[in-house]
Amino acid sequence: MAEIKKIGVFTSGGDAPGMNAAIRAVVRSALYYNLQVAGIRRGYEGMISGDIFNMDRKSVANIIQRGGTILKTARSDQFRTPEGRKIAYEQLKANGIDALVAIGGDGTFTGARIFGHEYDIPVLGLPGTIDNDLLGTDFTIGYDTAINTVVDAVDKIRDTAESHDRLFIVEVMGRDCGLIALRTGIAAGAEAILIPESKTDLNALYERLEKGRKDKSSKIVMVAESGEAGDAFEIGRQIKERYPQYDTRISILGHIQRGGRPSCMDRVLASRIGVAAVEGLLAGRRNEMVGIISNELAYTPFEHAIKHNIEINDNFLKIVEILSL
Amino acid sequence: MAEIKKIGVFTSGGDAPGMNAAIRAVVRSALYYNLQVAGIRRGYEGMISGDIFNMDRKSVANIIQRGGTILKTARSDQFRTPEGRKIAYEQLKANGIDALVAIGGDGTFTGARIFGHEYDIPVLGLPGTIDNDLLGTDFTIGYDTAINTVVDAVDKIRDTAESHDRLFIVEVMGRDCGLIALRTGIAAGAEAILIPESKTDLNALYERLEKGRKDKSSKIVMVAESGEAGDAFEIGRQIKERYPQYDTRISILGHIQRGGRPSCMDRVLASRIGVAAVEGLLAGRRNEMVGIISNELAYTPFEHAIKHNIEINDNFLKIVEILSL
Amino acid sequence: MAEIKKIGVFTSGGDAPGMNAAIRAVVRSALYYNLQVAGIRRGYEGMISGDIFNMDRKSVANIIQRGGTILKTARSDQFRTPEGRKIAYEQLKANGIDALVAIGGDGTFTGARIFGHEYDIPVLGLPGTIDNDLLGTDFTIGYDTAINTVVDAVDKIRDTAESHDRLFIVEVMGRDCGLIALRTGIAAGAEAILIPESKTDLNALYERLEKGRKDKSSKIVMVAESGEAGDAFEIGRQIKERYPQYDTRISILGHIQRGGRPSCMDRVLASRIGVAAVEGLLAGRRNEMVGIISNELAYTPFEHAIKHNIEINDNFLKIVEILSL
Amino acid sequence: MAEIKKIGVFTSGGDAPGMNAAIRAVVRSALYYNLQVAGIRRGYEGMISGDIFNMDRKSVANIIQRGGTILKTARSDQFRTPEGRKIAYEQLKANGIDALVAIGGDGTFTGARIFGHEYDIPVLGLPGTIDNDLLGTDFTIGYDTAINTVVDAVDKIRDTAESHDRLFIVEVMGRDCGLIALRTGIAAGAEAILIPESKTDLNALYERLEKGRKDKSSKIVMVAESGEAGDAFEIGRQIKERYPQYDTRISILGHIQRGGRPSCMDRVLASRIGVAAVEGLLAGRRNEMVGIISNELAYTPFEHAIKHNIEINDNFLKIVEILSL
Repeated sequence: MAEIKKIGVFTSGGDAPGMNAAIRAVVRSALYYNLQVAGIRRGYEGMISGDIFNMDRKSVANIIQRGGTILKTARSDQFRTPEGRKIAYEQLKANGIDALVAIGGDGTFTGARIFGHEYDIPVLGLPGTIDNDLLGTDFTIGYDTAINTVVDAVDKIRDTAESHDRLFIVEVMGRDCGLIALRTGIAAGAEAILIPESKTDLNALYERLEKGRKDKSSKIVMVAESGEAGDAFEIGRQIKERYPQYDTRISILGHIQRGGRPSCMDRVLASRIGVAAVEGLLAGRRNEMVGIISNELAYTPFEHAIKHNIEINDNFLKIVEILSL
Repeated sequence: MAEIKKIGVFTSGGDAPGMNAAIRAVVRSALYYNLQVAGIRRGYEGMISGDIFNMDRKSVANIIQRGGTILKTARSDQFRTPEGRKIAYEQLKANGIDALVAIGGDGTFTGARIFGHEYDIPVLGLPGTIDNDLLGTDFTIGYDTAINTVVDAVDKIRDTAESHDRLFIVEVMGRDCGLIALRTGIAAGAEAILIPESKTDLNALYERLEKGRKDKSSKIVMVAESGEAGDAFEIGRQIKERYPQYDTRISILGHIQRGGRPSCMDRVLASRIGVAAVEGLLAGRRNEMVGIISNELAYTPFEHAIKHNIEINDNFLKIVEILSL
Repeated sequence: MAEIKKIGVFTSGGDAPGMNAAIRAVVRSALYYNLQVAGIRRGYEGMISGDIFNMDRKSVANIIQRGGTILKTARSDQFRTPEGRKIAYEQLKANGIDALVAIGGDGTFTGARIFGHEYDIPVLGLPGTIDNDLLGTDFTIGYDTAINTVVDAVDKIRDTAESHDRLFIVEVMGRDCGLIALRTGIAAGAEAILIPESKTDLNALYERLEKGRKDKSSKIVMVAESGEAGDAFEIGRQIKERYPQYDTRISILGHIQRGGRPSCMDRVLASRIGVAAVEGLLAGRRNEMVGIISNELAYTPFEHAIKHNIEINDNFLKIVEILSL
Repeated sequence: MAEIKKIGVFTSGGDAPGMNAAIRAVVRSALYYNLQVAGIRRGYEGMISGDIFNMDRKSVANIIQRGGTILKTARSDQFRTPEGRKIAYEQLKANGIDALVAIGGDGTFTGARIFGHEYDIPVLGLPGTIDNDLLGTDFTIGYDTAINTVVDAVDKIRDTAESHDRLFIVEVMGRDCGLIALRTGIAAGAEAILIPESKTDLNALYERLEKGRKDKSSKIVMVAESGEAGDAFEIGRQIKERYPQYDTRISILGHIQRGGRPSCMDRVLASRIGVAAVEGLLAGRRNEMVGIISNELAYTPFEHAIKHNIEINDNFLKIVEILSL
């Protein structure tokens, strides 16, 4: 294995709060270990188009607290083709980049895994996604911030739900994974939570609503987008039909969940694993995602990290049942 | 005019942050002036059903910072009938209430005006609505909080818009009045604002988008709900058709705009005019809304306050044009 | 009067949230009117040392939501001397700057006034200070954000005060002007407020504390720094001596009051008067501060703006008395 | 062991955000398992004075999002005496309470441990303290909220530090444990962190300050209160003496760190272990603290939980060194 002299760093896929803290950590630890470091803009798109620039300490000054990603992000169809990846590799060589840190989610790591097998360039990944849907880390960068954003929003919605005695159906992100809905549902005191993993049907929801206190007319139902029961509007339609006595409203939280200043925990996570990615590359690691499990650094092969069978703690659903009614 | 001994206070219509601060101010100033004070739950509905209870200093302890309204709110069809209002009057008499403070918006004051003419009971109103769509006050209780909530949300959306170079269409509240969209559009650095008052057509929007910097691909278009150009989804559809090169997304902020801890200014406003309502009733005022104009107390007859021809400062739209591109 | 071709903009004195929004407004409206615009770093210090650079639209991209000032700020002893001001003037000429927008408080405008009289260079000022201690504008840029920051902090302190039945003395900024303490005291439900203007002595405070509800043991006393009664620690010492039964604590909010994302109102204010400053210079105005009075633009000569006899609305203190106990 | 019919719950020691979520969880899960539940006000003080009341589902409605503790908290000298504990036990018996859930920190559990040995009443503890200084749980209730509050505050301070090129010494809570300073220092991008555990002397601090970039004049030094190097004012005095060229300021964050709406993670933690405490009592557990280690419930004997030799991850200090300069 050749000595590493210059690391390239990029963000890819959906953006997540804390990505900037991760970029900062990669850049500054690379410099600390006397490496050069280059930023690649817009993920694999910029790798192919050569949108690459050298970074120094000042490039990442005053960004740890900022949402989004200063390197921008995109999805790349071209990188899915062997031709695209070949161009990308040539661009990296042309820029003297001999190792990569990829910050993103499962799409990012799927690309990184293939690229790392095809070309002799070590790649390590940092889990940057609000969905928390990767194996090999207790939490992904952005998840903690996103769940706080959701809870802030539902606290506001609870104010108006209480004032009007309304039932609110609140849809949160998490296409294949209900972890956002689950923790925020507990934290917001939701009456019921519908997530993909729990195969919740509407009958179970109806049962829960009917077991509720009669004197408590404001209710929150938390729904993960694309849950099995259909989306929030469809669920709302059915609830309105069955319970015309409820003043039922829908709220889709949407893209506010992706933005905002990262929480303390997201910044610390991003900082720790950003440093570890550089140190891991120097130690000869490749084709792995760096995460934290039980407060210890953990390196997980990309193919395992993206397996996507995140287990839902059954106990969480029981807690909602016990506490909400 | 008979001496006032007991004041009834209620909230009605859409809830707004700061309503609790207003209730607190009415209750405590009534007690300060040695009056009794009763809370009426759920607005005119509770007035008719007799959901009325005596309040003391502790009833309003620790509520100044809470969103929503502890008195709850509702819309009442029955109060629109003479029969409903007759029952309401009888309930007030049965509870010894001889003056009212109504906290709400134009629907609330329309009811109050009629009631105040039909029955010999003095009523003063406090403007409590996030829409800022009443004459007789520079700001309504809740408006300042709501625009900060919107700006917080759009700052978050801007993070992800910048990271992905997206165009976001953000729909905010303000059915008949674009004041939320206007101020938040300036504050969030929106590229364009569509409000009911400005008869904005989509061609003007297109012109603005095309005048924009070519190197600035993230854009925010702020839309007041039910603006003339159609709602956010329809506008989004048309923009996508015309500008397929933009990665266009829609965000409906929805009910989060109604909730949350009131801002400092909303609490101060609610406190000032809450005290002034009680003092006004004692001074013999009736059938007026209490507001603040140019930092001075102002009393405006209900029929004038709800006239709804809020003038939009043309200069505001010019400012958006100058600053956003 | 010579035609204006290039405007210089700078921030000076204590920083305030919204200064960046003001800089953005000045830069973009200058460009809108086909003027050049230069940024001067660190106020009068940078003017003297020639720390001056040309700005374009991108120079102020994505700063409207950021606290602090990208132009940095400082206090300058050298500018108080005729020699210093002569060098400053020569630097401006060398950079082709023929008009200035000064963003700051009374120190800034004192310097601007003298400079504007000595040299033939038009200067307009924008009120940027959290203290709200200038005549000629209802609010200064930063005041609204600062009072929200204070209220957020006191809400948190109230949580712990309530839990422990404590009396908290909270010191806020406002050296010569109690407007921060006054509005935040009302909004936070303080039991008493000590401000320079009201010549409050401790006996009045004791009276207020003793009139309070016996069942309400948590209390907040809001103090403006350098109020006449001495600072928070001294007041705390005396209260502890007189009321050993209270669990009395001190909290100095300090510099958090200067930072943070500006509120919606501060951004709108900064945007409006930033545009107006450029338009005012083009219309031949000079040696004036631009403000907003009763929602209308107002131009006030510097010597009047800094007169410092801000009137305190007596009614505000009465409101605290009525509502807090 | 007698069957448990009625659980008493109380909070004791310093308050922490999330205590209300824990109370809610204990009350609702007790009711779920058909137990009675009583609230004891002001910790051991209220246990001795008999300030005890029955709680139902509504007693804990709408509190999950509130800071502080609705049961109030206090420190009790009397409970340290055998006589005090005897009265407390008699009060519990008189109220039919046959098991306890104690929410607090090491002082609380020290008392609980002794009490649980002296009297035949099972006690389980929930870790409620912002300091995160207990063994047997990865995080204590309140820690996550507190570190976010600190980071929010330091982000604001950074705004003004950047604008003025100042060095700020920020003192945070954590009398015997530097975990607040450590994580927030990383998250806020502090230049140096002084914590009790690292036996940091000022020479090391000076070295770090001198290794810093010459072009970066704003600096944050994070100090845990009562760290070995002396308090923030003393450190500030020495830095000013040694580095007169720095514009050095002190900020003591103080009691704002204890309050505020709990974060999502704190609410989830409090909910999970609140349920587990009731289930643990029913399963015959006693004299243990309930925590979460590596996302699993963990029960730790009181005497072990309060041992106080929290290990500091050395890696954290290295991260600060790598990232800050």
